[in-house]
Amino acid sequence: MILRSSPASPFGRKCKLTAYILGLKDKIEITRADTTDPEDSIRKENPLGKIPTLVLDDGSHLYDSLVICEYLDSLAEGTLFPQGDARWPALTLHALGNGMLDASLLQVYEMRFRPEETRNQDWLTSQNEKVQRGLSWLEANIPQTGARPNIGDITIACALGYLDFRFEGAWRDGHPNLVAWLKRFADATPGFEETRPHD
Amino acid sequence: MILRSSPASPFGRKCKLTAYILGLKDKIEITRADTTDPEDSIRKENPLGKIPTLVLDDGSHLYDSLVICEYLDSLAEGTLFPQGDARWPALTLHALGNGMLDASLLQVYEMRFRPEETRNQDWLTSQNEKVQRGLSWLEANIPQTGARPNIGDITIACALGYLDFRFEGAWRDGHPNLVAWLKRFADATPGFEETRPHD
Repeated sequence: MILRSSPASPFGRKCKLTAYILGLKDKIEITRADTTDPEDSIRKENPLGKIPTLVLDDGSHLYDSLVICEYLDSLAEGTLFPQGDARWPALTLHALGNGMLDASLLQVYEMRFRPEETRNQDWLTSQNEKVQRGLSWLEANIPQTGARPNIGDITIACALGYLDFRFEGAWRDGHPNLVAWLKRFADATPGFEETRPHD
Repeated sequence: MILRSSPASPFGRKCKLTAYILGLKDKIEITRADTTDPEDSIRKENPLGKIPTLVLDDGSHLYDSLVICEYLDSLAEGTLFPQGDARWPALTLHALGNGMLDASLLQVYEMRFRPEETRNQDWLTSQNEKVQRGLSWLEANIPQTGARPNIGDITIACALGYLDFRFEGAWRDGHPNLVAWLKRFADATPGFEETRPHD
């Protein structure tokens, strides 16, 4: 199978990290997609033109990152998606991390694609406040990551990694418990360094 | 349990429609959240400040809409989230509908929150093209909705309903198969009319 992604994509990183953790890394070929190029096949593979998208051997396509991660977990008979009562807090933690990423990316896009005089400070502030409230909540509710992380833990780690990558790690000030959690996660998780985002 | 939502939210509609289909409507109290009001408790219930968010009887919170729908399905022992091979196309269809909704909402926000002279036509075009490619793909790949819809079907119906609500139903031109599919879905699905979005 082929993962269409890019080295900078935090949602692509979720999938790559999931593949590392599940021991599936060598089963997946990763090819770079340019979502800004109308000729790139990504718009045929995923009408939204978004990465990551997984191309299966039968030619069918899976997206978004959450679906890809759950599919990989099922292939490996993994435990990244708990069953029973533990499922709902894990998936809600995933949604928090994903929402922090969405809010981070909207800030990056605002700076990248809009001339300075047309940027909207209220919008930037509103997106940043989502990230900051997420960080405050996490600092007070540190994920109870077990010997193996779940999809929520993985996504929070990718969200924090993206803040390190694009926002100079400013989140680290004032969140010592979360900084310590990320260090433990990084030390314990195969592929964390190898999947670090870069341009 | 309490669903924090608003009458206009397409993601809230997904949850309400799911509750109707599963026969859980009377178990859920729906209260309106104002995500623009810093004093609204939604920012405590969900650090992202987003609706829908489900407040459980034990005081814990579930989000986003996908998690809420899967939780309700598990409570009712429903079949909205297939197991086995049928799971991945259903969840990918969900992701397509959700992505079309995200792209639609970004266009609405652009028009609502930015002065006209600072709007970015490239951004609006890019978001609209995601919706249009999604519609073209769906027109050629009509969902194979069975006697009971799955979460993918529900989300596509909510996405099309949102295009009717905010974009004057312009999508209907050129997509006769999809128009016919939505009519069949609406006729067969309890709660479709009752959950129609309004301001």
